[in-house]
Amino acid sequence: MIAEGAANDAGAVLGAESMSSGNAVFPPPDDPEPRDRQPFGVLTPNPPLPEGHPGANGQRFFTIQRVNGNGANGKNDGVSGGHRHTLEESDRVKKNSVQRYLLKEAREKKKASSVRAMSTQNQPSQKTYHTKATGLAALTVSNHSSENELKLYGSCFCPFVQRVWIALEAKGIPYQYIEVDPYKKPQSLLEVNPRGLVPALRHGDWGSHESTVLLEYLEDLNTGPPLLPPGDAKLRAYCRLWADFINRNIVPNFYRVLQEQDEQKQISNAQELKDAFATLVNAADSQGPFFLGANISFVDVQVAPWIIRLSRVLKPYRAWPDPDAGSRWGAWVNAIEANEHVKATTSDDELYIDSYERYAQNRPNTSLLASAINSGRSLP
Amino acid sequence: MIAEGAANDAGAVLGAESMSSGNAVFPPPDDPEPRDRQPFGVLTPNPPLPEGHPGANGQRFFTIQRVNGNGANGKNDGVSGGHRHTLEESDRVKKNSVQRYLLKEAREKKKASSVRAMSTQNQPSQKTYHTKATGLAALTVSNHSSENELKLYGSCFCPFVQRVWIALEAKGIPYQYIEVDPYKKPQSLLEVNPRGLVPALRHGDWGSHESTVLLEYLEDLNTGPPLLPPGDAKLRAYCRLWADFINRNIVPNFYRVLQEQDEQKQISNAQELKDAFATLVNAADSQGPFFLGANISFVDVQVAPWIIRLSRVLKPYRAWPDPDAGSRWGAWVNAIEANEHVKATTSDDELYIDSYERYAQNRPNTSLLASAINSGRSLP
Repeated sequence: MIAEGAANDAGAVLGAESMSSGNAVFPPPDDPEPRDRQPFGVLTPNPPLPEGHPGANGQRFFTIQRVNGNGANGKNDGVSGGHRHTLEESDRVKKNSVQRYLLKEAREKKKASSVRAMSTQNQPSQKTYHTKATGLAALTVSNHSSENELKLYGSCFCPFVQRVWIALEAKGIPYQYIEVDPYKKPQSLLEVNPRGLVPALRHGDWGSHESTVLLEYLEDLNTGPPLLPPGDAKLRAYCRLWADFINRNIVPNFYRVLQEQDEQKQISNAQELKDAFATLVNAADSQGPFFLGANISFVDVQVAPWIIRLSRVLKPYRAWPDPDAGSRWGAWVNAIEANEHVKATTSDDELYIDSYERYAQNRPNTSLLASAINSGRSLP
Repeated sequence: MIAEGAANDAGAVLGAESMSSGNAVFPPPDDPEPRDRQPFGVLTPNPPLPEGHPGANGQRFFTIQRVNGNGANGKNDGVSGGHRHTLEESDRVKKNSVQRYLLKEAREKKKASSVRAMSTQNQPSQKTYHTKATGLAALTVSNHSSENELKLYGSCFCPFVQRVWIALEAKGIPYQYIEVDPYKKPQSLLEVNPRGLVPALRHGDWGSHESTVLLEYLEDLNTGPPLLPPGDAKLRAYCRLWADFINRNIVPNFYRVLQEQDEQKQISNAQELKDAFATLVNAADSQGPFFLGANISFVDVQVAPWIIRLSRVLKPYRAWPDPDAGSRWGAWVNAIEANEHVKATTSDDELYIDSYERYAQNRPNTSLLASAINSGRSLP
């Protein structure tokens, strides 16, 4: 409902001239094409399970997706094409592969539990990630636990989730928070993001993911205070430019400092991260305390989760220094820490210490992100 | 002028409720703070040179930027702080470093010219990048050579530039195209982007860079046909999600295929790129031919420069296969190739063959992007 109203408002911005142009990229509203053909991003509900299906008792362990004419052509050349066999044959092959998958999963589970047992015998006990917010964030979760058409799938320690969470709080948009164990992705999350990464938003029968995409989506809803300055194309571009800088320089460097095990490399990685923060501070309003001035906005929300993890994660694990008193940087950190929406989405310190130990020890299979950092590939 | 008009229109979208909110992120328009304090992204014109200054004859070789209280604190801890010496001392140090820089540059120039001479003696002659568009793109350059307050700094072979160029053409926004040799960045470009990367846009006394940021800027101008569907927050998010996919998966994989010298790795990299294109095709409208349907839009513009470089660069250098006739993928490639705005910004084939040879041979110092791919870091 929020979305529809906002959509109509925003549509009115477009002048008659561009809508009537023969060259218009989008057809006028009275032409149902091409949206009716394919409702982009709309989630298809699972059909009811047949009677006697083991999943009817709550155990849902496979879905069979029939694909015809929309997949690869089997030649591994990246080109789509029709299936070369019948749908029945396709179902049979997929059922077999599901069975193989389940067997493999059972084997790995068995192996993993023995590894856990070994590690408690031979090694100091390892801390693990939390699956439930604590402190003020727990209160916010409890205030947003009732059913809502707008659902945020998040994990309490995840900084990408916190971006979207801060924005929802700052805008006062009603939402439901759904805590997800990122190592045991629920089916409802996989429906919104097949890769199972958080944050993911479900809005009615539609869903999307990627924190920056979701922040832009919340802006486009035009509900509550804007985080990008409305109507100022140049200032909006400036904010997006520095948000992009955060995603390219601050986020990956944060994990490089944390995951690096070699002490000399930790130091040079930390220097890169410090330089990136210094560059960002130089781009900010000189008075501050926030990026654009007195109030929190888009760039602050993009970087806040990593700023609050400096004292909570990088300081204990990598001796990250506190800001100098009275510096512009210190004023920004303090403003972020004191902001009510940041506080409302932040758990107690212990949650971060525990949840990031696996990164600081660079344990295998920590996350797709951790593996991307280790292999020098784009973040997932 | 375009920007101001559009800004006012878009500002009207925001309802009275959110503007009057005490919690509003941006102050109401009658409050000059905080914009007056710091005009973000506004370029400071160089002051007139003093009489007798060597630069007065057209030779401009250094600028001295006085910084006090906005730089690092000298402790290399990423924290800003006031300078510890006077502005005069700062000027002296900077003049010396400019002199050192000029000496170093002269030495390297001498060395480079001798390397060039050697390479023509001992190696097969190497092709080099073009610095002037050819074919239909040359015609477009010549039609956009006269002075305009909106300036696109571009290099004729650069796909990131072509994104912005296609969007300007599709929207019919008046602009001036300024060809830049990316290996000899002019001062006018460095004023807009201190790193000297193209594309960069200058709009009056303001400038910005990064192709995706610039595409959003052109959308925010609300001039000409939109590329993101106006008023449809969900479909806009869908487009941004897949634009993000292109930037994370298709763009870096394109260069991994081209720069890789090991044949087995070329094959596995090509498979990753093919898989990424197949995923993108599956996300597109099933009828097409473009991503959202009958017309070119945001996602097409983001990916078009790499699609047209498949047949022009990856096919000759890495035997990239043509699309299967009649496939959805083939229909998309054909639609991109036949689009008038893509054609208007595309040079003759030889320009791409020549300009990308240095990537295909993975020569050192090819570009920041090529180095980032080699070292497994985020793209610049």
